[in-house]
Amino acid sequence: MDAAEVLAALAFDRDGLVAAVAQQHDTGEVLMLAWMNRDAVAETLATGRVCYWSRSRRALWRKGESSGPGQRLVARRVDCDGDALLLLVDQTSAACHTGQRSCFFRAARDGRLVTIAEPVAAPSP
Amino acid sequence: MDAAEVLAALAFDRDGLVAAVAQQHDTGEVLMLAWMNRDAVAETLATGRVCYWSRSRRALWRKGESSGPGQRLVARRVDCDGDALLLLVDQTSAACHTGQRSCFFRAARDGRLVTIAEPVAAPSP
Repeated sequence: MDAAEVLAALAFDRDGLVAAVAQQHDTGEVLMLAWMNRDAVAETLATGRVCYWSRSRRALWRKGESSGPGQRLVARRVDCDGDALLLLVDQTSAACHTGQRSCFFRAARDGRLVTIAEPVAAPSP
Repeated sequence: MDAAEVLAALAFDRDGLVAAVAQQHDTGEVLMLAWMNRDAVAETLATGRVCYWSRSRRALWRKGESSGPGQRLVARRVDCDGDALLLLVDQTSAACHTGQRSCFFRAARDGRLVTIAEPVAAPSP
């Protein structure tokens, strides 16, 4: 996919990043929130496999490259001010490095954090 | 709600913010991505009405305060590393200042941005 028009619509922050929300395309489950730089967006649009930017490792982060399943891109949305992407993906098994299906596996209830799901895979190394 | 345990689990960035994804609780629609500082999180948990931090206005931003409908908080999730919240909300009418139901009303298709929804309300002033 030629990404020029999409890239031009994005408002990268001072670190050159936009936020990306990954949502399972068929169930609506929100899986994770991560970051993309220009190269990550371009690669993701070109390949149909989701590639983020790891802020901790300061490197492109291809989901599933080193371990665990990747995210196949099904559809992509851009928000009103261009600083966030919504990625509709097909995520098999765990999206979270903890082995949880979703990174949002803790609920805040009555002032406490409660784990509301069981891991579906082993934690990533 | 006593927010101390929840606040302690959050990893605020160098600007004192965490990302917050608002999702319609019953349909799964992702409505918007915005930001919260410590005060916004505490107020949201205390009141059950979603309050963000507006980075452009540098002020608390109570959805629906000046115009348009607010967001009633139904449930709240914290991600694995504490830098993002998932807010399950009940959003009547438009979440987006453009009058669209969701801020993610543009799809990237074949390198083009395509508007895939019609506004449900007038734009906010």
